[in-house]
Amino acid sequence: MVIDAKKLYEKIDEFMDKEVTLEGWIRNHRKQKEFGFIDFSDGTCFKHIQVVYDDKLSDFETIQKYHVGSAIKVIGKVVKSPKEGQPFEIQASGVILLGECPEDYPIQPKKHSREFLREVAHLRVRTNLFQAVFRVRSVASYAIHKYFQDRGYVYVQTPLLTANDGEGAGEMFQVTTMDLKNIPITKEGNVNFNDDFFSKKVGLTVTGQLEAEAFAMAYKKVYTFGPTFRAEDSNTKVHASEFWMIEPEIAFCDIDELMDIEEDMLKYIVKYVLENCKDEMEFLDKFVEKGLIEKLEKLVNSKFTRVTHEEVIKILKDAKVKFEFTPEYGEDIAKEHEKYITEYFNGPVFIKDWPKDIKAFYMKLNEDGKTVRGVDLEVPGAGELMGGSEREACYTKLKQRMDELGMKEEGLEWYLDLRKYGGCVHSGFGMGFERLLIYLTGVENIRDVIPFPRTPGNCEF
Amino acid sequence: MVIDAKKLYEKIDEFMDKEVTLEGWIRNHRKQKEFGFIDFSDGTCFKHIQVVYDDKLSDFETIQKYHVGSAIKVIGKVVKSPKEGQPFEIQASGVILLGECPEDYPIQPKKHSREFLREVAHLRVRTNLFQAVFRVRSVASYAIHKYFQDRGYVYVQTPLLTANDGEGAGEMFQVTTMDLKNIPITKEGNVNFNDDFFSKKVGLTVTGQLEAEAFAMAYKKVYTFGPTFRAEDSNTKVHASEFWMIEPEIAFCDIDELMDIEEDMLKYIVKYVLENCKDEMEFLDKFVEKGLIEKLEKLVNSKFTRVTHEEVIKILKDAKVKFEFTPEYGEDIAKEHEKYITEYFNGPVFIKDWPKDIKAFYMKLNEDGKTVRGVDLEVPGAGELMGGSEREACYTKLKQRMDELGMKEEGLEWYLDLRKYGGCVHSGFGMGFERLLIYLTGVENIRDVIPFPRTPGNCEF
Repeated sequence: MVIDAKKLYEKIDEFMDKEVTLEGWIRNHRKQKEFGFIDFSDGTCFKHIQVVYDDKLSDFETIQKYHVGSAIKVIGKVVKSPKEGQPFEIQASGVILLGECPEDYPIQPKKHSREFLREVAHLRVRTNLFQAVFRVRSVASYAIHKYFQDRGYVYVQTPLLTANDGEGAGEMFQVTTMDLKNIPITKEGNVNFNDDFFSKKVGLTVTGQLEAEAFAMAYKKVYTFGPTFRAEDSNTKVHASEFWMIEPEIAFCDIDELMDIEEDMLKYIVKYVLENCKDEMEFLDKFVEKGLIEKLEKLVNSKFTRVTHEEVIKILKDAKVKFEFTPEYGEDIAKEHEKYITEYFNGPVFIKDWPKDIKAFYMKLNEDGKTVRGVDLEVPGAGELMGGSEREACYTKLKQRMDELGMKEEGLEWYLDLRKYGGCVHSGFGMGFERLLIYLTGVENIRDVIPFPRTPGNCEF
Repeated sequence: MVIDAKKLYEKIDEFMDKEVTLEGWIRNHRKQKEFGFIDFSDGTCFKHIQVVYDDKLSDFETIQKYHVGSAIKVIGKVVKSPKEGQPFEIQASGVILLGECPEDYPIQPKKHSREFLREVAHLRVRTNLFQAVFRVRSVASYAIHKYFQDRGYVYVQTPLLTANDGEGAGEMFQVTTMDLKNIPITKEGNVNFNDDFFSKKVGLTVTGQLEAEAFAMAYKKVYTFGPTFRAEDSNTKVHASEFWMIEPEIAFCDIDELMDIEEDMLKYIVKYVLENCKDEMEFLDKFVEKGLIEKLEKLVNSKFTRVTHEEVIKILKDAKVKFEFTPEYGEDIAKEHEKYITEYFNGPVFIKDWPKDIKAFYMKLNEDGKTVRGVDLEVPGAGELMGGSEREACYTKLKQRMDELGMKEEGLEWYLDLRKYGGCVHSGFGMGFERLLIYLTGVENIRDVIPFPRTPGNCEF
């Protein structure tokens, strides 16, 4: 029976001096006159296995010809390794070629630039860097589900196709089945969506929050975890056209309790990844971001500060620093300000009570009539990691705010209904999953934490 | 401190005779001259709580006016209930209105048709039926993640925006940011996608399998779990335009091992839901599908049969039954045939070795040159629940099949690369999550297992 490398590492005492069979790939291959050393990986764990074979094997010369990247089956004895830090190696009695790999294989055992690796995204996951990154992505995903499920939250898969126009959260992609060469036009000169698949204008959602609110009004605690889209033509390190979001929504929860949840959840995920991706995190700490583990451990043990937007502006104005952008009451803060503030408090900072004009229509208006109960979490080395708010629970105030902003009620009647029929204090937040992954892995570019990234002009694979 | 209903049920001994505070909604309200009875739910568990108040409360008359649907806070003592099968009730010392609900509230405590409830999908989740269905959906989602993560699979979030044209799996939605009123046309009379967001024709994916294969060639065991789209104009009980799929993909795994995994996974999920949604399943068994739990328990304890397509046709031809469609070698089977076969074997049946012409291009060709290593799982009462195959691992044969089918290599070079560079025997399957939910809940219409369903002409909320 074939055994996974992961299992072999976990139960090495049980397998020592026994014969095992492994199936996987050659990551590197060093050849000597009487010996050969195969750096073997089956992808089930980050660690590789050293396979040693010698010229006593009848097909020694054939084996020596196997190229890097080939799929092989290894039969051999598990023995103590003479190499330090390597608990065992395999003394092969057989190495069988399952799938060859020609010499033009792009993933050779040498350093490749990340730009080059993006062009071979279907193969880059065979490198140590991406093995680490995408396992962290998988484990962090699970940590998120586990956190919420263990606490009784209901996972709600909100729709991606939507007729809501995004409420200003971002540019939307249009979705249609009409023949682009023959778009029907009405007498008034508009697109006639009657003939389209949904008989109306439809796009890809920029948030699942509104639908999640409907579920929170029934289950009390819910969360979404799914893809979200932005059609913005921005080519930066932190923007992608398709990314994943986590959007928890909790009834009978105010902004203070929301911050408790945000802090608790983030610490849980970070701890879970540190505990369950030890090898991956050590690699990333060593080769991608020096001090990564220390940074994350510090976060887990820190107390998050809570300040108002007004306090933040005051601190920034008092700062003996020349900022590129002058901080102003009533205005948004810049990246440089975020950085200053997290350094000032030496840890993560919740900034709350934002000027209403720079925040979304659904945020609860404070008694001052000027600020809303929105809250952004600023994390050292990550910037804004989460954005949340207590939602406006009052039908009249919400309606008034929509009117002020010139928003149509049409299509959002159901959202207003949630305030009309047994509405209550409720809050929620959104976390961009890739922002979290950039923070967790130390990898700087969002294109390197998404399996097959989509950005303006780029939709390969 | 406010306590969740779920916690109260779980730790009732601890809370008996103590005062507690609850926050939730009035599901029903019976009034007597000196008493009032509130059927209370906070959505954290399926069970409701009976709240009793009497005219000793100074605001007795005010409380009696609270409508069904209102959000309330209840303060009261946990006492033994005189009602059979109800372990406790709350003797209220205070009932405070948090959010009122007018009498035109659509969800009154009476039977509503499912068609009507679809029109108020933002509120239907407050009914017992949908409380049960969507908690089962959440718990089943988690069971899927837990199954794969506990077994070392890597969760890969494959892209939804894709330039691949779906390989015949279904009609695709187009995605564009171009102005539909001014679509640029080339000299040759085609749409000029140069000006579009991705500078090419892009649509919403119908499968994540191809990308999952790339990850399986690096991690050995991977799975996807995410949304998928079909732009087919079919209005049936089992088709939706947006639905979720699970697509595991395993390297060094042949079709027989694949069937082992499919059987094991399905039994695990069913068992997990039976154990973790006891109240919900009892409700569904009683009010939606009589015998539901027995059906599911039978599945968990059954051995799945494995037969070839050829054997199936023979059995159908020999059957003393008049079918509407005549079963034929080399052809697909109809719903009535599926039903007959699962009854014939009295349990789930894997049908394998299908005629190549009715299956996808990527399935491994058998030695007979006529059939492929595809396998469908037919489940009594569910029909085809999973479809999978051993993939064609041979570069030459895959290329040849693509040529035969007139498929362009362009855009799929990377997929062919997976056979070129260390390819190996590998297999995978897809399971439509909503098909599973229909089977698990007994609810017949796919529109009732999706929070906000999208079907032709329907994109509300």
